[in-house]
Amino acid sequence: MTSFTVIGHTACTNASFPLQDLPGTGGRMDLLCRTVASSLFLSHGIRKDIICDIILLGPPYPGRIIRFDGSAMRNLSPDERNVASHIKKALSIPAGKLFREAGPGLYTRKGTLEDQLAEKRYAVLDESGTDIRKIGFEDMPDAFLLSDNRNFSDDEMSCIRGLPKYSLGPEIVHADHAIVLILNEIDRRRSGWN
Amino acid sequence: MTSFTVIGHTACTNASFPLQDLPGTGGRMDLLCRTVASSLFLSHGIRKDIICDIILLGPPYPGRIIRFDGSAMRNLSPDERNVASHIKKALSIPAGKLFREAGPGLYTRKGTLEDQLAEKRYAVLDESGTDIRKIGFEDMPDAFLLSDNRNFSDDEMSCIRGLPKYSLGPEIVHADHAIVLILNEIDRRRSGWN
Repeated sequence: MTSFTVIGHTACTNASFPLQDLPGTGGRMDLLCRTVASSLFLSHGIRKDIICDIILLGPPYPGRIIRFDGSAMRNLSPDERNVASHIKKALSIPAGKLFREAGPGLYTRKGTLEDQLAEKRYAVLDESGTDIRKIGFEDMPDAFLLSDNRNFSDDEMSCIRGLPKYSLGPEIVHADHAIVLILNEIDRRRSGWN
Repeated sequence: MTSFTVIGHTACTNASFPLQDLPGTGGRMDLLCRTVASSLFLSHGIRKDIICDIILLGPPYPGRIIRFDGSAMRNLSPDERNVASHIKKALSIPAGKLFREAGPGLYTRKGTLEDQLAEKRYAVLDESGTDIRKIGFEDMPDAFLLSDNRNFSDDEMSCIRGLPKYSLGPEIVHADHAIVLILNEIDRRRSGWN
């Protein structure tokens, strides 16, 4: 079981954002949708052992978490619009401190990065980190924290200080592409390809 | 310079498809849009040394090729809707046998897979292929041919017989994710990471 948590610094936190303007009114919701699809989709099915949590920090109610759990997910398609319609569905139910189900494999709650980091053994990606190809399977973290198109804020930097840092290659890639690379690394190790 | 060519077996070949239904009326245009974004986007810019050609084989005029050339591309965003609007723009100009410019870095022509394969040293992806991590940088092909959500047809299989086959890992992934993995391999070799 591996988890990805992606921070959407400007992502809209009510269900009103229009599906035809995910980057603008949605607050780069397009990018979050692609991280969900990268986390969950194989060519012919859903990765059952993956959870993708997105933390929405945009207006009007910053601090909403939406969970896509591959083990129970149904009716999800990989296109941005379909993933976004699931996000709207989750945003349309009231949220408290505990996860509530908004549909099969789809959950939501209020929460902060701090709450989230307390739950699992997280790592972050960083150009200066250890090359992910050099670490043993047993040292793979339970969870990876990623950011959208913005860098981590100062407050977020304080929260993640001390977490292990890994690097994926010489180029800095989008969060959804980073997830593809991490999953390939996990797939290879699990199947003895390395 | 590396090229990707992606076959869209059902992708719509006139500019009428609606941006709000890329998977349906667009004929899985969503998937092609993601392959374009995977080919061209780094975190803070466009890969100048990459070309992504998509071959649209859906109705009404199957056999239309659209080229996204990173060296000249401008105003492209990574969301599906924006890439699709570029595809519509290219489809809205008349196409002949030679590439015509439809905008900066955006070109289109009529063409077949056979025409396309004649131009470069292509390889394909296949579960039974050589692990891409095991081949030398100098043996990397100039171009990779990928398919959308469908397997290569019998006619296409005849065209690609004899091309080198590479494998990316134990799991079969979507074409856009495959492109991310190939580019990471190229980035690493070019920078001496392997």
